Amino acid sequence: MKIKYELIKNVGKARLGKLKTNYGTFDTPMFMPVGTLANVKTLTPEELYNMNSAVILSNTYHLWLRPGEDIVDKAGGLHKFMNYNGPILTDSGGFQVFSLAKKKDITEEGVYFKSHLDGKRLFLTPELSIQIQNKLDSDIAMSFDECIPYPATYEYAKQSTERTIRWAKRGKDVHSNLRQSLFGIVQGGEYEDLRKYSAEETVKLDFDGYAIGGTSVGEDKDTMYKMIDYAIKYLPLDKPRYLMGVGEPIDLLEGVERGIDMFDCVLPTRLARHGNAFTRKGRINLKNLKYKEDFTPIEDNCDCYTCKNYTKAYIRHLITCEEMLGGRLLSIHNIRFLIKEMEEIRESIKNDKFLEYKEEFIKQYKNND
Amino acid sequence: MKIKYELIKNVGKARLGKLKTNYGTFDTPMFMPVGTLANVKTLTPEELYNMNSAVILSNTYHLWLRPGEDIVDKAGGLHKFMNYNGPILTDSGGFQVFSLAKKKDITEEGVYFKSHLDGKRLFLTPELSIQIQNKLDSDIAMSFDECIPYPATYEYAKQSTERTIRWAKRGKDVHSNLRQSLFGIVQGGEYEDLRKYSAEETVKLDFDGYAIGGTSVGEDKDTMYKMIDYAIKYLPLDKPRYLMGVGEPIDLLEGVERGIDMFDCVLPTRLARHGNAFTRKGRINLKNLKYKEDFTPIEDNCDCYTCKNYTKAYIRHLITCEEMLGGRLLSIHNIRFLIKEMEEIRESIKNDKFLEYKEEFIKQYKNND
Repeated sequence: MKIKYELIKNVGKARLGKLKTNYGTFDTPMFMPVGTLANVKTLTPEELYNMNSAVILSNTYHLWLRPGEDIVDKAGGLHKFMNYNGPILTDSGGFQVFSLAKKKDITEEGVYFKSHLDGKRLFLTPELSIQIQNKLDSDIAMSFDECIPYPATYEYAKQSTERTIRWAKRGKDVHSNLRQSLFGIVQGGEYEDLRKYSAEETVKLDFDGYAIGGTSVGEDKDTMYKMIDYAIKYLPLDKPRYLMGVGEPIDLLEGVERGIDMFDCVLPTRLARHGNAFTRKGRINLKNLKYKEDFTPIEDNCDCYTCKNYTKAYIRHLITCEEMLGGRLLSIHNIRFLIKEMEEIRESIKNDKFLEYKEEFIKQYKNND
Repeated sequence: MKIKYELIKNVGKARLGKLKTNYGTFDTPMFMPVGTLANVKTLTPEELYNMNSAVILSNTYHLWLRPGEDIVDKAGGLHKFMNYNGPILTDSGGFQVFSLAKKKDITEEGVYFKSHLDGKRLFLTPELSIQIQNKLDSDIAMSFDECIPYPATYEYAKQSTERTIRWAKRGKDVHSNLRQSLFGIVQGGEYEDLRKYSAEETVKLDFDGYAIGGTSVGEDKDTMYKMIDYAIKYLPLDKPRYLMGVGEPIDLLEGVERGIDMFDCVLPTRLARHGNAFTRKGRINLKNLKYKEDFTPIEDNCDCYTCKNYTKAYIRHLITCEEMLGGRLLSIHNIRFLIKEMEEIRESIKNDKFLEYKEEFIKQYKNND
């Protein structure tokens, strides 16, 4: 079945809701961990369930290249292939074409670019992206879009935004997986009228949910928040809104305040691999010499497996020695950190205390010594 | 307390026994996974408990360099540092001096060599090795020895073997951790009379257990088996015997037949990182193209977490993409494979069927297609 969104309550634009999926019903707003290559790096599905993770992301572009959508299809779809019994969202490949391909050629038909693996010439179209996602059998597929670079001229952004809408329609026309939902993506760059235009035209195509794309591509925070504000007022209240690629703890709060229900980001796992941990008092780097004899957990009050069992000194030792268990333990902590933040955000909306919660969180987070 | 070994039953030289430790009583013969840098690579303690792992190994040389024995001591010992609630054996550093140090200078006092990390000049003595292990607070410490290269002249082997006995005595004299057992190591190279001499002299020093060292250093299998035969008849029946660095499935059987109770090896985790898996029909490499669409587990009858949840095609995908989860899943399978083999070996000794079990195992294992 397609997903169903139910709005439970709102405080200002901040929304408390429920997302009914093929793999259970989950509360929103939510943070979605990223499993690029059909696994959230270093972690098992059980570890994700234990963190109270709901939807996870996987990447169409990467799975298209390896192992190929036909292998995943033959395995019985992405859930069976990777043994994940929760909802999965696949992106469309549009962002990877933007971020990985050095030489690309965007035409009305689709995008020519070079594989980041072997330089092989590839051609991805709106239809092919959807057909791949149909085969991957994720629960939520994303429309193929162009992620507009920042900054971009008005002329470029306009032309690209209009094309993305034509692409969205073409993708929707070939979408044939009845148990898979399809989201549209609002582009428009930093331009208010283009965001409005993109939102309105995308909504006319009637998707199961709407994403705001083109964020986290180098723009400053205020511009990112504006991109949300420009678009979100034109999105229907009865569909989920997803802010793509955003996962900084403070940005989650800013997004929720503006009406976002879903977030994803590689940040928690990427930071982990480099020895960084989120804490309520800001990010810390475990490689720092001051943790060498620190036999306390990353955070005293954290309920994650890592904090319940390991000290900073031990994790520092693992990271210093390039032992993979270090990145694994930090990934668990960092993902749980964002999921717990979302749990608290939902609780605060329920109790009409979202703005107080947000203010207190930011105050603590920025007081990092 | 010191460990206690109880011989339950023997069939020929093969022994079924119990090892009473500070962290519970475990059946022997047993295979001990290696956790060089205070972690069995990629795995948590819980994963090891779930595989029915008992003693694990950690490396004195590596922990001396990073994080340093004082840090481990301040953490409350190795168990607390790495959060492992099972018995830990630390080797003495003798093998690493042999295998890692390119330029070394062996004197009566100890060994001068260069750090494999930064080339810094280091000096390890029998006393220092024991003092480090005392601080690490493992359950079983090993005497500092010279692992004789293979081949070695009789003259070199004799001189080295005699020195290793003097080193064993010096180490024992400074050993001061009352809850830690200390094992002696029989050397002697490939020479029957030196193995006898080494065994007899080491036993005179009265250790809590005895290892046979200098194996798995390039010698052929027959030579390795002879090294065991030459020494083991001089070892007391009421103490455990440990064959160092041996972990090939068939070698475990050959070792047990000759009276060995304990084995360790990096093989299961090292093979895992390179995409290899043990199976009853021999080793397989998951990178092989033929597994690309193989949606069956590594082994149908295996009870490990990996085989119960994942297919060869998925693990192949992870290994191909260099996703760490692949090595982790294979490590679980490979360690469980050896631990399960030991469980079956014990069962076969109990039922007076060890030789039949051994023959059948080897027949299957060598029939690899």
